[in-house]
Parts: sequence; structure tokens; C-alpha cells
Amino acid sequence: MKQYFPELRDQFRSLAEAAAGVRVCVIGHARPDGDCVGSQIAAQKLLAHFGLESFMANADCVPNSLLYLEGSELISIFDRQMMNDTALLYVDCADEGRVGPKTSIALQGFRRIGNVDHHISNTGFAEFNVVDQGASATCEILAGIAFDLQVTITPDLAQALYTGIMTDTGRFGFAATSSRVFDLCANLVDCGASPQAAAENLYENVSLARLKLLERFLGTLEYACDGKVCIGELKQRDFLETGTSYLDTEGFVDYARSVSDVAVGVLLEERKTTTKGSLRAERKEIRVDQVAAQFGGGGHACAAAMSSAMSLEELRNGLIESLRPRVS
Amino acid sequence: MKQYFPELRDQFRSLAEAAAGVRVCVIGHARPDGDCVGSQIAAQKLLAHFGLESFMANADCVPNSLLYLEGSELISIFDRQMMNDTALLYVDCADEGRVGPKTSIALQGFRRIGNVDHHISNTGFAEFNVVDQGASATCEILAGIAFDLQVTITPDLAQALYTGIMTDTGRFGFAATSSRVFDLCANLVDCGASPQAAAENLYENVSLARLKLLERFLGTLEYACDGKVCIGELKQRDFLETGTSYLDTEGFVDYARSVSDVAVGVLLEERKTTTKGSLRAERKEIRVDQVAAQFGGGGHACAAAMSSAMSLEELRNGLIESLRPRVS
Repeated sequence: MKQYFPELRDQFRSLAEAAAGVRVCVIGHARPDGDCVGSQIAAQKLLAHFGLESFMANADCVPNSLLYLEGSELISIFDRQMMNDTALLYVDCADEGRVGPKTSIALQGFRRIGNVDHHISNTGFAEFNVVDQGASATCEILAGIAFDLQVTITPDLAQALYTGIMTDTGRFGFAATSSRVFDLCANLVDCGASPQAAAENLYENVSLARLKLLERFLGTLEYACDGKVCIGELKQRDFLETGTSYLDTEGFVDYARSVSDVAVGVLLEERKTTTKGSLRAERKEIRVDQVAAQFGGGGHACAAAMSSAMSLEELRNGLIESLRPRVS
Repeated sequence: MKQYFPELRDQFRSLAEAAAGVRVCVIGHARPDGDCVGSQIAAQKLLAHFGLESFMANADCVPNSLLYLEGSELISIFDRQMMNDTALLYVDCADEGRVGPKTSIALQGFRRIGNVDHHISNTGFAEFNVVDQGASATCEILAGIAFDLQVTITPDLAQALYTGIMTDTGRFGFAATSSRVFDLCANLVDCGASPQAAAENLYENVSLARLKLLERFLGTLEYACDGKVCIGELKQRDFLETGTSYLDTEGFVDYARSVSDVAVGVLLEERKTTTKGSLRAERKEIRVDQVAAQFGGGGHACAAAMSSAMSLEELRNGLIESLRPRVS
């Protein structure tokens, strides 16, 4: 029998053995995405395979597009009251701070029994670190471990794992989309995952209001840094007049990045007292996480963000100056 | 050794044996797409595996986004002069008319030695019909046959096959995206296909002008038929003022279809003397091909188009009346 992650499989088994008799909180990052939610559902099933009791929580609610996943309705908004005699299993979190600032403080002192993740910046902050930095998604790791352990993969579990892989590979387009990714997806479809249901729920269930907001964003797109940077913006009134919220801007910055010869796409959002900036780079060498850090933010080498007290114009000018030497 | 399409493999072998000593023209459909071009490149390699000489031609040129495929530069615009003592291998064509009207007439009387295709409406018009209506793409069939025949799959061939599968599954989102699709893609990646290169060339190489055209299209989106139809339009001046052409509207109609609860998305384009209409349905039962046929067009159950002498307003009203009973 082919084994996908033999070392991580053993690491996860040790984690489960160490957690015998302990109630586990499976926690993901703030503003959970497909890989986070899919990983939480899958990690809970894997813990149950070892007879462990667990519950799932996040700082923010599950986005509407992911509520089609069976089990997502069991994910609570994090509340300190839940946490009596509980150990923590982090999923899809590069470090303990990714659960969100308030939640991170509330969780200080609790036992960090495990950490399942694929981020290159993972700090190995838990007792058992089930980390593969080459995996495309935390769900890729959990799918591999589930097959390796011969856990029964129901259609619901297969759908959760598939959804995490599909979203975190950018619909099978990012560099980490390996043959292992496709091999696991073939097996997940055999277990009952529906690629069509995933695509429809994630990408084809858009509000007309969101498309009107996209219209406004596209109308503002402009080049900077000799065409190497493409910037679009949304003002407070754009959200008000289209009846949309900040949640509706998901993915907009990718339109800016997808323009020919553009190395970095930027989305600026005017909020009540701050300006949100999102950066997406074509190549990880550009290190937009370092750019974001200059403005109090952070993130990944190719995807980073910040929330700044600067005005939209100030943040725009600051980002352009910071990006210029990196893209030229 | 696992076999993907044992019957079609034998059928293709018989085709190749029947073509011994014959020069073959590998021809695809008008306005070639990823599956068409990928299939032409792959079919030529399979013919070469059997020692056959072939060349590739289409009525229309290969789109820019597909020119990154090695071998695409060898695909000619069809010319009757090429056709001395030549037999025809059709790929990705449901019937002989799909090569385009003029080309179809020019090809009358030539030997139709083969037809490799996955369309449900394939008429089996050739001597050897290598057809699987359950396959997601013609490239899925050709990839399976290539593995079944143990043809050497170079990275270039793997990339062509992968690109055809990726595009014709709608980035792995359409109903025909089976475990076989993912299994074949895993093998193609092992042979050197790059999912990232495919995604970048097909979906992330957009002109800013196209995004400005998209902005205009999104701005016109409106509901009809109690929210079951979503219609957007582009006027002559939209193309002129953004410096774009009709080629830049590829995929726009999918934005209209992707709106929640919308069953049919419509794109109307005002051209010099005609109006182009494009229809995309969420479910094949709606049969937008039948709607298009009422206006002199045609297509697939879920994707159809027409070119009409009606004004934009007349065609809009006509389509709404025709769609109303089908979506309610």
C-alpha cells in the first residue's frame, strides 16, 4: 500500500497517543478559508479515529461559501468559556498568533499538543509538529495521513479535504500543485468528493452586488513602478453604494496581479478609521511579507496584508516606494 | 499495468494501421481552444508513434494564450492547397461541420479516417471513431491512450495534454471531472507537465484593457425572468474606448452565470452589422442550444451562441422570451 506521508503519519499517531483522555480544541486561523475549515473538519475525524473527543473553534465565523461542508456548522466562534481542561491542536497556522490577536492572548498557558501545517514559516510551536512545507495545503497533509492510516473516508470528509486542496492550490494553479496533489484528489473523488459541488459553492455562487463592487475595483486599476505593480482601490462609499461588505473583496487583488507583466497586485480598501492593503506577488522572491511588515502587517512571501492608520493616498504612496526596488 | 481506455486504444491502433503510408491532416474545430490545440499536438505524436506522417491545421489561428505550448507553432491556418493525397483525423469535433463552414466545404470528398472526441452529440462520422462521451476532454482520451500504448510522454506532450484537460474541465470544476481525470493529471505531472505554467498562461496573462472591458460588462449586468437570467452587454463603443476586440470577451458570460440562483447567463455584443449573443446554462436540461437555434445559432446544451441581424435590444427581448419558460 502506497504511503503519502509516513513520517507525519507516525507523528500524528504519537500526538493522538499523547492526547489520550484529553479533550482537544481544533483551532484554525483568523478569517478561516477553505484549507482552514477543511483541515478542522478532517483533523476532528482523525482524532475521533483514535477515540479522542474534540471540538472546533475559530476567532471568526466560517464564510458562507464553505457552509456547504458537512461539519462546518459545528465550528464555533472561539470563546474562552469553552476551554476547561482542553489541549490545543492548531491547523493551518504558521505560528500561535495566527488564531487572531485576542484569541491568541486567551489561549496563553494552554497545552499546545499539536500543529498540522504546510507554511514555510511554521515555527514548530507545539509538542507534535505535523508540518510539511512542501505540501500545497494542510488538507493535502491530512488527506495523505488519513489514507496512510486507512481511516474510513466518508463522502463528507472527502469533500472537506478536496475543498481545502482546491482552494489552497488556487484551483490547481500554484507551484506546489504536485502529482501527489492530483493523486490524492483522484482518491478523494473515489471516496465521494464532488469537484463540481466544490467549484459551484466556492466560485459560482456570487452575489450581483459583489460583481458591482468588482466593477468599481476594476475601474480604478492603474499601473505603478513602470507597469510592474498594478493597484486598485475601494472607498467607503463603494461598499455603501453597492450594499457589500469587506468580505466581498476576496480574490479581487488577484485581478490586479493577473495583468500581463505585473509582478505585484495591490488592493487598497478605505475603512472607517484605517486603510487595509493587500499584496499579491507573482514570485516569492519579491517577499511582499517584508513590504507588509514595514506597514505593521505580515503574511506570506507571495500574499501579505496590513491594516494601517495612514490615509489611502499615504498608504498607496508608501507601498509604491517600498515595492519599487523589489520589482525593478 | 492499469489501462485507461482499452477499447479506444485498440480503435486508435486500428486507425493507425489503416493509415499506413497515408499522409494525415489533424484538424480541429473553428476558434480552437485548449482542448482542441492540445489534442492536435497529442494526436500528431500518437500518429508519429506508429510511424505516420501528419500535419495540423485549423480554420482559425491558435489563440495567444496557447502559443506557449511547444508544437502549437506548427498548426497552420487551413488552406485547400495542403490537401494533396491526405486523409483527415478530426479531433474535438462533434461533427464534420465543426471545422468551420468554408473548411467543411473544402474538405468534402477527402477520406475521414478518424475522429477522436468526447462530445455527447458526436455523430460517428469517420471510419474509426475514437469517442468517449463520458470523458471530460478529448485530451483526457488521448492522454489515456498514450499511457495505455506506453508512448513516451515528453514534458511538452504532457503539457499539451494537461492544458486540454484543465481548460475543458473548467479548471476541474465541471461534472465530468472524474477520479480518472485527476489520476491522469498526476501521471502527466510526473511526465513533466507544469500546472503552474498552464494556469499562468491561460488565466494570469490578462491585459489591463480586457479588465476595463470586463468593468463595462459588469456594470451592465441585470436580472431578467425573475432573477433566473442575468444579462450583460457590450456596445461597439465599449470595444473602441477600451482598445479591445471581440477576442477579449472570452469567459465574460460566465460572470453572469455565476450569480447566485441564476440559471442562464447572457452576453450580448453589438457588432458592426450584427449582434452576437452567448448563453451559458447552469444545467444541461435548460438546452440553451435550442434557444440559440431559434435565432440562427447553435452549440451545446449548456453553452451556445448566435450571430443575429437583430438590434441588441431586439435580440435581448427575444432571448428573454425564449428563456422564460425554460428557467421558470
